[in-house]
Amino acid sequence: MKMEGYFSRNIKDALKNDPPGEWMPVLPDDCIRLSSGFPAPELVPADGLKNAVNRLLEEEEDLPLHYLGSPRFARLKDYIQQRLQERGLKDGEVLVTAGACQGIDLLARILIDDQTLVAVESPTYMEALEVFQNYTEHFMSIPVDEYGLQTDRLEEVLADRKEKGLPLPKLLYTIPTFQNPTGTTMSTERRKHVVELAEKFDFLVVEDDAYGELFFEEQAVPLKAMDHHDRVLHVGSLSKVVAPGMRIGWVNAGPEVITALAWFKKDLDHPFIQATMAAFLENTDMVQRLSLLRETYREKRDVMISELEKSMPERASWYIPEGGYFVWIKVSGADTSELLQAALDEGVSFIPGQYFFLNHEDGKEFLRLSFSYASRDEIVDGVQKLGNALAKLHG
Amino acid sequence: MKMEGYFSRNIKDALKNDPPGEWMPVLPDDCIRLSSGFPAPELVPADGLKNAVNRLLEEEEDLPLHYLGSPRFARLKDYIQQRLQERGLKDGEVLVTAGACQGIDLLARILIDDQTLVAVESPTYMEALEVFQNYTEHFMSIPVDEYGLQTDRLEEVLADRKEKGLPLPKLLYTIPTFQNPTGTTMSTERRKHVVELAEKFDFLVVEDDAYGELFFEEQAVPLKAMDHHDRVLHVGSLSKVVAPGMRIGWVNAGPEVITALAWFKKDLDHPFIQATMAAFLENTDMVQRLSLLRETYREKRDVMISELEKSMPERASWYIPEGGYFVWIKVSGADTSELLQAALDEGVSFIPGQYFFLNHEDGKEFLRLSFSYASRDEIVDGVQKLGNALAKLHG
Repeated sequence: MKMEGYFSRNIKDALKNDPPGEWMPVLPDDCIRLSSGFPAPELVPADGLKNAVNRLLEEEEDLPLHYLGSPRFARLKDYIQQRLQERGLKDGEVLVTAGACQGIDLLARILIDDQTLVAVESPTYMEALEVFQNYTEHFMSIPVDEYGLQTDRLEEVLADRKEKGLPLPKLLYTIPTFQNPTGTTMSTERRKHVVELAEKFDFLVVEDDAYGELFFEEQAVPLKAMDHHDRVLHVGSLSKVVAPGMRIGWVNAGPEVITALAWFKKDLDHPFIQATMAAFLENTDMVQRLSLLRETYREKRDVMISELEKSMPERASWYIPEGGYFVWIKVSGADTSELLQAALDEGVSFIPGQYFFLNHEDGKEFLRLSFSYASRDEIVDGVQKLGNALAKLHG
Repeated sequence: MKMEGYFSRNIKDALKNDPPGEWMPVLPDDCIRLSSGFPAPELVPADGLKNAVNRLLEEEEDLPLHYLGSPRFARLKDYIQQRLQERGLKDGEVLVTAGACQGIDLLARILIDDQTLVAVESPTYMEALEVFQNYTEHFMSIPVDEYGLQTDRLEEVLADRKEKGLPLPKLLYTIPTFQNPTGTTMSTERRKHVVELAEKFDFLVVEDDAYGELFFEEQAVPLKAMDHHDRVLHVGSLSKVVAPGMRIGWVNAGPEVITALAWFKKDLDHPFIQATMAAFLENTDMVQRLSLLRETYREKRDVMISELEKSMPERASWYIPEGGYFVWIKVSGADTSELLQAALDEGVSFIPGQYFFLNHEDGKEFLRLSFSYASRDEIVDGVQKLGNALAKLHG
């Protein structure tokens, strides 16, 4: 039986796009993975989490294995709320989600229908883009530069659309701090500007703050901490600072939004994993842990940048990220999708720029390297291999 | 700022309904919980899962704590597929979900829009109903009796609608085996009839099979095993046979549906928990475990039924469930929402019938008891307390 006729309109539109997750080839086992936005293996607290599970189940027995009942569910939420307060996010309520992705997905469900115009950064995080594309095909993209989203350009486009009577976006999706994929951070002036523009042009801001705590120099103030009108919906996660496989994230927003999100989330909660994370956090000095993460990733960034300076040709350029996981590289005249095969042949992977743009063509000269997962030796080796691939392909 | 204006149409419709999860009062600590559809605490394998986590993290270290990488993700899917094949579900593909609830939610997302008519059993599982109500307000409900969904009635209604040119349902949601809340099981004739009707009137069937393996006498053949046209979408879970807090479920359906569901699921996967469940299953004799579960729940059912016969007034009647967790009781002339307060005062909880009906009024004389969670002594005590509450309220 052909099923397509049974799908609802939304899904039919969504299925027109590229299938999710099919854009990277399977990597050979011995490939140096500069493509993977994973935390460093040695920083994933496997032992700490093992101890947390043992303690949790000894103390609570079957309690955290039911639908509800563990006192640690509330403690996890309290912990997240407290961390956010320390970072200046004092007003909003918190909904714990299965990673930042569930937060973004739930926000899309309550805010986006097939008429909604969504403003995104260009380039941006492709998973979020794919989630939004399940609900609408109306996007406008605003370029990112060294200082993050170009808010002057955003204002120009909005003013122009307003004058012409064109629809205005209902929401802007931004990763202001250590952006994925560019690694850039929005300047304080631009942050203020975004919050002003949201008020002036009446849109909401989804602030994806997955990397915000991984700063190498100074901490950026989250947009949400500058917002006094509940316009910023803050999305965060413990994926980058504890372990992505635990899938613990949150949305921090005003009470009306949190109520609506909880509605759609229903009992899609994850009692055991939430209680485990709470037990882990009880016995973990997160201030110390965050220091270690920042130090390690800063060193890895330095290794990567220093090797890029040695191994890259003249026509390659990059931003130096001040936190997070990524370096974004422009190779003038290159086609990085073609380059990927040459790089894999050398034994190194990266993500071609096209996957971060609504219009894939715009990403042709770009590629994303991650310094988070590979070891320092692998980073040196991998960047050299990338240099070799570039030399072979483009002479 | 008032947020309501920013919500998409779907959510505005959904928010008209009762808030989810707010329909039960908070239960006092010493209350006997005949309301809870939880597994028996002593049958939740806390030690087995603890061992599974320890073994997993010793063997795989950080691997299952990243987004992907553990070989056990695939093994979990294989295990589920194999169990389904043993039960006669040979054709479909499997998508592992975060509990049956995520499966139902994903199915609703790909199949239901605001024009979709959904057929449901009356009464039915309220969480599923709430999920569907996020997408449509068009429902038709077909009564359930001792032998499950009244398929003759379904045929009548469909034929009548067809004749009158009224819209026909795109999908039927049914719990054919040990239904929640009635505990009844659809007869083999009716199962065949449902599958025929789906073909004749061109609808899909979402078969919620959460309790299918917990039979006390004989195993029922899933609808999906009778379906040769990919019309049945089978939803199942390990919540009732391992632990609900692990949130492992699945959808078993044709490849087009599985592809579409995977699209909306994106990377909302749960690597650590899936790998842990795979590690648990590796070291567990599930045939033996299922025998133990069936034996324990059968005994508990017997204790409950025998105490009901002693403690209930003449005007109370019930079906004797042949599996699952629940006994559905009708108390002629009662208002079970009112009765709940009297029962809580006595020290026992149940779920009033109204929460299982689209039209709450229809559930006034009904209540659901669960024999799964409470101990045998508590069941006896709880049913007596319920009898006392009934006597006090209605003399």
